[in-house]
Amino acid sequence: MAPQYAPSLRSRLPLVAFLLETLFLLLFVFWVKIEKQEYRRSESEPFVHSYADFQDVHVMIFMGFGFLATFLVRYGLSGSGFNVLLAAMAVQWAVLMNGFLLPQHRHHRGQIHISMKSVIEAELSTASALIAIGAVHGKTNPVQLLLMSLVEVTGFVVNQWILRTLLHADALYSIMLLHIFGSLFGVMVSWVLHREGIKPHHEKEKTDRKTGLFAMFGTLFMWMFWPSFNSALLSSRWERALRLTVIYGTYLSLAVSVVVAMSVSMLTSSKGKMNMVHVQSSALSAGVAIGVAMTAVSEPWVAMVIGFCASLLSGLGFRYMKNHMLFAFECHDTCGVLNVHTIPGILGWFAHLCLRLASMEGTVAVQFAVYHICVLLITLCVCLVMGVATGIVLKWSIWRPQQDRKCFDDQAFWEFPNLVTKK
Amino acid sequence: MAPQYAPSLRSRLPLVAFLLETLFLLLFVFWVKIEKQEYRRSESEPFVHSYADFQDVHVMIFMGFGFLATFLVRYGLSGSGFNVLLAAMAVQWAVLMNGFLLPQHRHHRGQIHISMKSVIEAELSTASALIAIGAVHGKTNPVQLLLMSLVEVTGFVVNQWILRTLLHADALYSIMLLHIFGSLFGVMVSWVLHREGIKPHHEKEKTDRKTGLFAMFGTLFMWMFWPSFNSALLSSRWERALRLTVIYGTYLSLAVSVVVAMSVSMLTSSKGKMNMVHVQSSALSAGVAIGVAMTAVSEPWVAMVIGFCASLLSGLGFRYMKNHMLFAFECHDTCGVLNVHTIPGILGWFAHLCLRLASMEGTVAVQFAVYHICVLLITLCVCLVMGVATGIVLKWSIWRPQQDRKCFDDQAFWEFPNLVTKK
Amino acid sequence: MAPQYAPSLRSRLPLVAFLLETLFLLLFVFWVKIEKQEYRRSESEPFVHSYADFQDVHVMIFMGFGFLATFLVRYGLSGSGFNVLLAAMAVQWAVLMNGFLLPQHRHHRGQIHISMKSVIEAELSTASALIAIGAVHGKTNPVQLLLMSLVEVTGFVVNQWILRTLLHADALYSIMLLHIFGSLFGVMVSWVLHREGIKPHHEKEKTDRKTGLFAMFGTLFMWMFWPSFNSALLSSRWERALRLTVIYGTYLSLAVSVVVAMSVSMLTSSKGKMNMVHVQSSALSAGVAIGVAMTAVSEPWVAMVIGFCASLLSGLGFRYMKNHMLFAFECHDTCGVLNVHTIPGILGWFAHLCLRLASMEGTVAVQFAVYHICVLLITLCVCLVMGVATGIVLKWSIWRPQQDRKCFDDQAFWEFPNLVTKK
Repeated sequence: MAPQYAPSLRSRLPLVAFLLETLFLLLFVFWVKIEKQEYRRSESEPFVHSYADFQDVHVMIFMGFGFLATFLVRYGLSGSGFNVLLAAMAVQWAVLMNGFLLPQHRHHRGQIHISMKSVIEAELSTASALIAIGAVHGKTNPVQLLLMSLVEVTGFVVNQWILRTLLHADALYSIMLLHIFGSLFGVMVSWVLHREGIKPHHEKEKTDRKTGLFAMFGTLFMWMFWPSFNSALLSSRWERALRLTVIYGTYLSLAVSVVVAMSVSMLTSSKGKMNMVHVQSSALSAGVAIGVAMTAVSEPWVAMVIGFCASLLSGLGFRYMKNHMLFAFECHDTCGVLNVHTIPGILGWFAHLCLRLASMEGTVAVQFAVYHICVLLITLCVCLVMGVATGIVLKWSIWRPQQDRKCFDDQAFWEFPNLVTKK
Repeated sequence: MAPQYAPSLRSRLPLVAFLLETLFLLLFVFWVKIEKQEYRRSESEPFVHSYADFQDVHVMIFMGFGFLATFLVRYGLSGSGFNVLLAAMAVQWAVLMNGFLLPQHRHHRGQIHISMKSVIEAELSTASALIAIGAVHGKTNPVQLLLMSLVEVTGFVVNQWILRTLLHADALYSIMLLHIFGSLFGVMVSWVLHREGIKPHHEKEKTDRKTGLFAMFGTLFMWMFWPSFNSALLSSRWERALRLTVIYGTYLSLAVSVVVAMSVSMLTSSKGKMNMVHVQSSALSAGVAIGVAMTAVSEPWVAMVIGFCASLLSGLGFRYMKNHMLFAFECHDTCGVLNVHTIPGILGWFAHLCLRLASMEGTVAVQFAVYHICVLLITLCVCLVMGVATGIVLKWSIWRPQQDRKCFDDQAFWEFPNLVTKK
Repeated sequence: MAPQYAPSLRSRLPLVAFLLETLFLLLFVFWVKIEKQEYRRSESEPFVHSYADFQDVHVMIFMGFGFLATFLVRYGLSGSGFNVLLAAMAVQWAVLMNGFLLPQHRHHRGQIHISMKSVIEAELSTASALIAIGAVHGKTNPVQLLLMSLVEVTGFVVNQWILRTLLHADALYSIMLLHIFGSLFGVMVSWVLHREGIKPHHEKEKTDRKTGLFAMFGTLFMWMFWPSFNSALLSSRWERALRLTVIYGTYLSLAVSVVVAMSVSMLTSSKGKMNMVHVQSSALSAGVAIGVAMTAVSEPWVAMVIGFCASLLSGLGFRYMKNHMLFAFECHDTCGVLNVHTIPGILGWFAHLCLRLASMEGTVAVQFAVYHICVLLITLCVCLVMGVATGIVLKWSIWRPQQDRKCFDDQAFWEFPNLVTKK
């Protein structure tokens, strides 16, 4: 193959995808059943409930994440197309992994039963993989992305299993660390896979008005349905009051977040102009922070203050830290997941700790603080170690990564019929 | 700053936004609580119900209105971006204003309680502000838009309070005047802010195929979810039969509306071609007309006839009245809100009157007619006076409006990274 | 009119549309009532249920089908705009036709009552018309499309009536043949209307990155809401367990389908690159196959295997059969409905037969096989005959079809204000 073309994946992607899909199919044949009891056990309402929640999360995963990644001017097809491929694989794998490792997904005779709750949890695990992918978009090929997302889902479920086994952490608590886990995993992979050739600035890594609007689309779908994302797992009867608080809190904090994101973006620009990518990303940071803190938030204004701070930090991070990360640490972060997910996630974790401690005393408070810190430390260890390991494996040239010049470019992977048919 | 650039808003927008947001936050701290009783009082179903309704309205406000305003070829980022900013601020302000002025939002000890119903009403008030914004899009900067939308929400809620206090009008009745109130408010502001420089035709005020598709997007989201928009407040048990009638009526009248909009657009064009902007706008006018008339409509065919007439008037208005308004009255109406909201709104109001009178006799009929006319006249007075006053305040040069040449242009407010990084 | 312009439809489309719309209105006046009992009879939950289902189907019909047809680089406005026009007319007609021919839509005194179920069935009938339209997009004008979609809906409902009268087939069973009926109807029309001028390849029949993203949009909306599309009619209490199976089965088979579609597209490309249009189309084929087979599928893995095969056949069909159809049979299929709907539909029908036979014995099995084959044969006869007849009628030059050069081009039907106002 002449050096001006990106390496063909014809012998790689179909092979890997067919092998994995066949494996998944076999595992589904022997292990997975549909939970027929669902309708009988839980009366009709909770089901309608969960199906609507499931769809909101579904839209965020497949539409939201996909179109968020279309902001690069030449990477729209890959950004949205690969997202669907990875998410479709990761969801299947997450159903299996959750079933194998976490007892709440297994039923008598050891089989995995699919229910709305298990599918929502699988999609939330997939979300953590898609966040990780955000850090390496444009610099990896779909084979690498596919392996990375499956390893990330494995790591995320293993982390849940560790937290449950060692610390008796409940599912909701550990799932909501998905933002921190996914983003740091992705940043680690991106750090290991660093390419000198995309520094200081890759000529194709830019945005224009039309791709900004496509990304606006993804952003809005994420932004609008985030209350459902945060509250989707709160479906049992005794969690309803909390569910309500989470919905209103997420909604109001996201409203504050948009205002702060635009103001910060304009204030930190020398010409007083807003940056579409920064605004879109920072506007979502409130959802992340509230997602981690939510079980401790009881008043709308607390949620709004958390949203305010998350958006402020995220906005400043985009202006001042993103380039610093690239030059000082050689870590390129395509979608800025560090600023959208890691920092607001840590902020939310911290807010959670403070809010809980405020209502506790003496030994109980110390116990909770230690427990809360251990949960974060274990999660950080797992995601950092697995991220680095995954990066090292993906660096292997057997995966045929594209050349530096072909980064952030759809033409490495997609046919363009109009170019082909031009005489 | 050199005259070729639009004036920087760095010292204006962040200041205004941060001040207002801090004020809102303080008011939320002291006044707003989440209504914990919601789940207990109303059994599960009505809640699921309202949450789904809320989301449909939510999608219309943030996605629908935002992408409707992307039809201008160089104003897409502003059209959709500012929409989110304004709506996020206006929703918070509407929750507060509704709570302060309207007793149904206040509970014991005078606090404002957030519930699905209060959030939906806040978003409907926001809708009236976004309609007003439609008239001045592209000719104002975000500081002006922000102030205008907050004043509009204030005026809208004050109008509700006046109607309730003077005429004992119920909430549903006065809220559905949102189309008339918002559009006339916006047209008044646009009339006061008239710029000679954008007449006869501004070179940047045009559309192309791609922006037409983005606008199609917003149009379709409005169009598809309008039945929920009209029926969202009909959630109590005894309003269900009406709710059903409204849903089917809105649905069918919108279907008729699309057919009429396309036919009129083709019939009134000398070359027999349709105009995308006219078609998209007129197709929505049936929803407006039905929204105002809905409580009096009991048969599907009545709704369809109202939709037919609304779309016909709106389509003719776009062809023959829009330019006339500009030249004869010096009133430029970017999104044609006069033809989409005012005229169909008045038509709906008139249909409401006729349908009610048809089932009444003697004194009752006269009483109702007087009452109905008074409601409209008061609303017109409030919105016209407040619109003119707002326009005069916004004309002040302290808000740093852009030059005529920078109208309808994203570059006045947004960074374009691809231009920056080009050598 | 000079020959370089497409023939003006000013004297055709408005006339046809107004006449038909007036006819529909009159039929609605005399025949259609809203079913006021709906809320009382069925308790609240099933209604919320159906309204949510209705909206999902609604989004697929108006947003999904519309944006699927925006992939052609110069046909976006027509693809999405005509879709709304046709669907809005077809839905009204389907409500009437269903009411006239099928007894489950009629009530005492012979009137047609609108309910969520009847509206959903009308939208499913409309779906079959929109599938047919997919085969002729770009080569016909809106008058032809309008007549064709109304005839298609008529044929589809008549076929249901024949199946019910002759074979006592239930509604669900015959509705799910919509994919096979619609696609073959469309292919027949396209075959009769064949134009030599668009062979071997029309210069405007191509796609680019931006239109690929718009089409991605439509694809994703179809893909995400397909579980609701397949399960929308399963709303009664005793169909709930099946409903659950259909939702999970459709969801999982679509996930498998995406993976297979991308792999096949890359594997069959000489340069190892994926084709966006092929991937988008094939990814949806699993939903079609499952839709036809669904009542016989009881395990998730069976659904996944059907999805795997459907996507494989569809992907191969796009690469190897589409051009063959054009050259050998002179049948041009714009959206490839033969590969997306016909082949997966037949596959689903076959899977249905095999799965049912596996659980039957002796005479019962033979009876079922004969019945099942008869259903397909009758449907094929009706759609092939009506398709050819419709094609012959539409070939009449009174409908003023555009010239070959104006195929796949918005400019034949839409004003472009930016071109008009350029000096």
